[in-house]
Amino acid sequence: AFAEMNEVIGRSHFGQMAVGSLSMQDSIMLHLYGNAEQKERWLQPLVAGEIYPSVGLTEPEVAGSDPTLMQASARLDGDQWVINAHKWFTSGANRAAFTTVFCETEPEAGRHAKFSSIIVPTDTPGYELVRVVPTMGTTHGAHCEIRLTDVRVPRDHLLGERGAGFVIAQKRLGPGRIFHCMRWLGQAQRAFELMCERANTRHAHGSLLAEKGEIQRYVAESAAEIQASRLMTFDAARVLDSGEEARIEISLIKFWGARMLHNVIDRAIQVHGALGVTADTPLEQMYREARYARIYDGPDEVHRMVVARRLMRDPAKNPPWAR
Amino acid sequence: AFAEMNEVIGRSHFGQMAVGSLSMQDSIMLHLYGNAEQKERWLQPLVAGEIYPSVGLTEPEVAGSDPTLMQASARLDGDQWVINAHKWFTSGANRAAFTTVFCETEPEAGRHAKFSSIIVPTDTPGYELVRVVPTMGTTHGAHCEIRLTDVRVPRDHLLGERGAGFVIAQKRLGPGRIFHCMRWLGQAQRAFELMCERANTRHAHGSLLAEKGEIQRYVAESAAEIQASRLMTFDAARVLDSGEEARIEISLIKFWGARMLHNVIDRAIQVHGALGVTADTPLEQMYREARYARIYDGPDEVHRMVVARRLMRDPAKNPPWAR
Amino acid sequence: AFAEMNEVIGRSHFGQMAVGSLSMQDSIMLHLYGNAEQKERWLQPLVAGEIYPSVGLTEPEVAGSDPTLMQASARLDGDQWVINAHKWFTSGANRAAFTTVFCETEPEAGRHAKFSSIIVPTDTPGYELVRVVPTMGTTHGAHCEIRLTDVRVPRDHLLGERGAGFVIAQKRLGPGRIFHCMRWLGQAQRAFELMCERANTRHAHGSLLAEKGEIQRYVAESAAEIQASRLMTFDAARVLDSGEEARIEISLIKFWGARMLHNVIDRAIQVHGALGVTADTPLEQMYREARYARIYDGPDEVHRMVVARRLMRDPAKNPPWAR
Amino acid sequence: AFAEMNEVIGRSHFGQMAVGSLSMQDSIMLHLYGNAEQKERWLQPLVAGEIYPSVGLTEPEVAGSDPTLMQASARLDGDQWVINAHKWFTSGANRAAFTTVFCETEPEAGRHAKFSSIIVPTDTPGYELVRVVPTMGTTHGAHCEIRLTDVRVPRDHLLGERGAGFVIAQKRLGPGRIFHCMRWLGQAQRAFELMCERANTRHAHGSLLAEKGEIQRYVAESAAEIQASRLMTFDAARVLDSGEEARIEISLIKFWGARMLHNVIDRAIQVHGALGVTADTPLEQMYREARYARIYDGPDEVHRMVVARRLMRDPAKNPPWAR
Ligand SMILES: Cc1cc2nc3c(=O)[nH]c(=O)nc-3n(C[C@H](O)[C@H](O)[C@H](O)COP(=O)(O)OP(=O)(O)OC[C@H]3O[C@@H](n4cnc5c(N)ncnc54)[C@H](O)[C@@H]3O)c2cc1C
Ligand SMILES: Cc1cc2nc3c(=O)[nH]c(=O)nc-3n(C[C@H](O)[C@H](O)[C@H](O)COP(=O)(O)OP(=O)(O)OC[C@H]3O[C@@H](n4cnc5c(N)ncnc54)[C@H](O)[C@@H]3O)c2cc1C
Ligand SMILES: Cc1cc2nc3c(=O)[nH]c(=O)nc-3n(C[C@H](O)[C@H](O)[C@H](O)COP(=O)(O)OP(=O)(O)OC[C@H]3O[C@@H](n4cnc5c(N)ncnc54)[C@H](O)[C@@H]3O)c2cc1C
Ligand SMILES: Cc1cc2nc3c(=O)[nH]c(=O)nc-3n(C[C@H](O)[C@H](O)[C@H](O)COP(=O)(O)OP(=O)(O)OC[C@H]3O[C@@H](n4cnc5c(N)ncnc54)[C@H](O)[C@@H]3O)c2cc1C
Repeated sequence: AFAEMNEVIGRSHFGQMAVGSLSMQDSIMLHLYGNAEQKERWLQPLVAGEIYPSVGLTEPEVAGSDPTLMQASARLDGDQWVINAHKWFTSGANRAAFTTVFCETEPEAGRHAKFSSIIVPTDTPGYELVRVVPTMGTTHGAHCEIRLTDVRVPRDHLLGERGAGFVIAQKRLGPGRIFHCMRWLGQAQRAFELMCERANTRHAHGSLLAEKGEIQRYVAESAAEIQASRLMTFDAARVLDSGEEARIEISLIKFWGARMLHNVIDRAIQVHGALGVTADTPLEQMYREARYARIYDGPDEVHRMVVARRLMRDPAKNPPWAR
Repeated sequence: AFAEMNEVIGRSHFGQMAVGSLSMQDSIMLHLYGNAEQKERWLQPLVAGEIYPSVGLTEPEVAGSDPTLMQASARLDGDQWVINAHKWFTSGANRAAFTTVFCETEPEAGRHAKFSSIIVPTDTPGYELVRVVPTMGTTHGAHCEIRLTDVRVPRDHLLGERGAGFVIAQKRLGPGRIFHCMRWLGQAQRAFELMCERANTRHAHGSLLAEKGEIQRYVAESAAEIQASRLMTFDAARVLDSGEEARIEISLIKFWGARMLHNVIDRAIQVHGALGVTADTPLEQMYREARYARIYDGPDEVHRMVVARRLMRDPAKNPPWAR
Repeated sequence: AFAEMNEVIGRSHFGQMAVGSLSMQDSIMLHLYGNAEQKERWLQPLVAGEIYPSVGLTEPEVAGSDPTLMQASARLDGDQWVINAHKWFTSGANRAAFTTVFCETEPEAGRHAKFSSIIVPTDTPGYELVRVVPTMGTTHGAHCEIRLTDVRVPRDHLLGERGAGFVIAQKRLGPGRIFHCMRWLGQAQRAFELMCERANTRHAHGSLLAEKGEIQRYVAESAAEIQASRLMTFDAARVLDSGEEARIEISLIKFWGARMLHNVIDRAIQVHGALGVTADTPLEQMYREARYARIYDGPDEVHRMVVARRLMRDPAKNPPWAR
Repeated sequence: AFAEMNEVIGRSHFGQMAVGSLSMQDSIMLHLYGNAEQKERWLQPLVAGEIYPSVGLTEPEVAGSDPTLMQASARLDGDQWVINAHKWFTSGANRAAFTTVFCETEPEAGRHAKFSSIIVPTDTPGYELVRVVPTMGTTHGAHCEIRLTDVRVPRDHLLGERGAGFVIAQKRLGPGRIFHCMRWLGQAQRAFELMCERANTRHAHGSLLAEKGEIQRYVAESAAEIQASRLMTFDAARVLDSGEEARIEISLIKFWGARMLHNVIDRAIQVHGALGVTADTPLEQMYREARYARIYDGPDEVHRMVVARRLMRDPAKNPPWAR
């Protein structure tokens, strides 16, 4: 999937850098599950950078960590889906052309086969943008609260099979998490350089900061953590590329990389002193945004639970080092 | 000093809660070092809550951690001090009636006797508010950059003795740090309650969060850290009240309490998931502001250095447990 | 209970220092629950230091963390208890005069009312010392594995009521944990002093270790942790003395103090380099023994679970700071 | 060097497993610096497993972290080196055929060119085995204290050039550290499996340990740390194999891997409860020995200092991710 996706992205003239990782995830999803018409209508302008996507899984009322609790629903009325949903953290919905809404369509089915995903253009009647939720001091993140009241879309807006919502969400998230990790690495490396540059020029109590033991510790620990995260991310991507699911690798680097990101930025801020908390360097914004990383795409605790269960199922065979 | 200060504050009709800890610190400073006229002009309206103070130690060009590097200067010209200074993080300067400016007045003196503190009304010609520095996504903190160019104030605006700047700053900071710790405790306790309440009501993966081992760990660790910080803060206040300087106690709780503050808020956010990073709870603002705590009034590393040196000077006698 | 116990101990000529904390815990237990005859036969020689006690709760086959799983049993046969049990970590059994054996006597009762405690002289036929289990490189700890096969003791060897085993174990452990914490404080302070002394005299890479930032960090962090543990221990003792159960305070300091103990000793070893792992200083033995502290008298995880549940039951009222 | 060494080892019939990593390090050293005669006399029986080596750098009186402080000395007297030295932690000296003694031979030279290494058969007159130093509860480690008093060996026992002691020690330590890391990985993986197996079978408080959140956290964190260490170790070996020095990679994994080792074993013990501290599993011995890892072949703090300096020299180019 990872290789395919790179292919998809590669077709865009703007390339990987121009397309945010959100768009990339949605591009993969459409690429894998969209029918011909959907690809033409949504995927092409998406990779061309002409429109933005958004995806609605999380709901304020129930734990997003546990998607089986989702309350949004859709029922078929003739040739239309009638959707009711209250979602939030539908990132980018305020500028998106459509939202892929996950909702219950098969109330009788088993817990993991109840849900489907349906493409809903954001200008459909009944689609309400309640607000852009302020997060960490800003609304730049564009994390939207939306409400869909008896929203009607044609039957063929269903993405993939009925009841396949879980599988689709999963396929979207796997490589998505690796994109996140790669972005985090870029940020951490930037923070690392800023930290070193400051330490190399700031003088206090008789020496450069670069000569202080505590600061050296920050630099060394940061380098080790970045290096570890890099290698783990690449390894997960390699496994994914080889056609396996890499679930363990991805869960490990998801929670571990998110912590690394915080730690490195946090140390870089500390070395900058008051300057570090100002908008005069990119660090404070990175710091605030890094806080999200331990929550989105699966909170740390859920990844640890899931990965631990999988590992313990066969501790001699399942770990990455035993493959 | 601590007891005296409580007394001073106590005289105000608004009491401890109404007066921010910044004002309290400046009230102590004026109470201890101000002459009769200064007290009348500045201290009384201050404790009455009619005006706001501000204090200018830190400069962008040199390490605030090491005040001996300060570049601001004042020279006597007749009966006036002529002050040149570039300061930042002069918190509250934008609404303050005056800034207590620390600057070199005795260039020939030893490293710790070079500096004095001078009260400068913010409407004095040459006092420029360069900007309110945006920090952690906002300018609410009112951390100002100011520039004083040939600012002239009467000679008797000197606070305390010539060359006593260091001592005055120190006397201001000691109890000030305890105020900070007390505020931190209040915040951490609020975050703790929010965390528990959420855990008691949010359900995921088959149980309340309150029944998950990782969440129980967060609750228990947070309670231990809050309890430890509380007792250490009270103990430092007790020593200070008894007339001793409590430098070791204060340095220990300064860096330790600042970490506790972060940890507890951070866990509370995590337990709230996406909700935790929104402005729908006070947690995200607390999180951002908590980042300052490891920097202001002495970065962690400086407190650790200072306290370690003091402890190692006589490891059998100097620790708090050996008093 | 705590005050009473001090009283009991106080009666001994040897005093608190001479009596190990194991003996103290057993003295409390006998004092609180023993009848007149039991006190005369066991408590008096115990506090006089003439005999040693031992206590058998833990069994290899089932989780000691969860005493409801205990498999040892006793049934009345005429005027005798007939006991079958396989216990381990019956510390000191190899030199003890008796073992207080916890076992099921009321199979029909509810989970917490099934068990009783019976005093079994170690020379009773059928009482077998299987081995002294080697732990952390030594058998000095005298952690014994014992097997009781149809061991018969008179009916009046029952300690306390039938079915009161849980309550008795709990009463024993509460103050016992505070004794542990006090011992840990003593050890940590000793390690702290050794660390500082070494840092003050060892020279490497151009300065004393005492001047290195990383070492100063170790000293400062250690002092903070010791100070926190001290105040938390005293506070728990104070609450206990006031007649309350202090369960929250005790659980918090139990897991928190055990970690502090490890951390401080660990840093002291590190500052000593290779010397730190040799028997030339007491540190390496302290290090090995400190590892027990996170397991005995309730593993960390159990304390965290228990304390978190209690705190969450009423997060505004139950924390120590809300009493 | 790494590839060469594998070649050397490969020639031995016993192979890599039979030869301890100490012997491997000494084999490399002899392979790289020994002359034909030395190779025949020492290297061949060494790789054949017929004799054991030992190496004497560290001295009790001065910081082993800073080898420029070494006090051992050798002077030429005709065709003989006359050596005086007091060393300790000369691991394996009690059963070794020879000790490679590092000592000052060029008192006039610069700090890093003063020292040479000389092969001293352990049965040479004047070579005294003072004691096997007990460490972490045992003398199995065979960490010896030795004293060489006017020990005479022929001139051609010099290993490598005069004054090349530092370079030789460095060449020995680089790949040596990677061997350590590989051993640590093996141990950590073993501990990991034991932890999982125990969690899968031990039941407490209503479920298997494997279902407890705290335990799942231990498993997940351990897997991430092992995986990170593995990839970092392989990456360092790869760089070394490519002919570069890999100093940064080696320093990072040296301190980081040593911590991983402790953490994983420590968690495995905790999951075993009291069983974990007994000799009934290999964990407690692993735990004790893991403590050495943060000290030998460069204490953590020295690696952090060295690597941080190197990284800060050019933070954009020197990190592993920028190569
Ligand atoms: C920046 C950002 C962008 C996002 N973008 C999108 C988007 O575009 N579309 C979308 O649908 N969603 C989005 N989300 C939402 C995200 O997917 C959810 O926040 C996430 O799934 C967690 O759900 P929740 O917030 O409801 O937290 P909850 O499910 O309520 O979980 C709260 C906390 O409970 C704990 N917890 C949960 N389960 C367990 C367990 N089994 N064991 C132990 N602890 C547990 C964890 O600490 C967790 O953080 C975004 C979130 C953020 C922060
Ligand atoms: C929210 C906030 C409010 C503030 N309000 C005021 C105010 O009202 N008035 C005022 O004058 N100032 C104020 N300050 C400034 C504050 O006092 C300084 O930030 C602080 O003294 C540190 O100085 P600096 O920022 O110049 O950092 P620097 O001195 O440059 O230090 C940067 C970093 O270097 C490291 N470092 C420094 N010394 C050592 C050492 N010896 N060993 C190891 N590491 C070291 C630390 O990591 C430190 O964080 C405020 C700051 C904040 C964040
Ligand atoms: C030095 C020492 C001295 C001792 N002396 C005595 C003595 O004199 N008499 C006596 O009877 N006993 C004694 N003990 C035994 C001690 O009381 C037990 O070790 C302890 O109760 C734990 O039981 P266990 O060893 O069976 O571990 P288990 O109960 O098997 O627990 C193993 C691990 O599982 C985990 N765990 C357990 N429950 C939970 C949970 N709910 N959530 C998450 N994780 C969990 C913890 O990590 C725990 O460490 C001693 C132990 C030591 C180490
Ligand atoms: C199991 C084991 C096996 C060993 N085998 C051998 C062997 O076979 N041959 C041999 O010659 N040696 C051997 N050693 C010794 C080892 O090489 C030394 O212990 C090591 O070099 C540290 O030297 P030291 O013990 O003298 O500690 P010191 O140099 O006294 O250092 C003590 C502590 O000071 C701190 N420190 C030192 N420098 C700095 C700095 N710049 N900044 C901050 N902190 C600093 C560190 O915390 C360090 O741990 C062995 C050691 C062990 C534990």
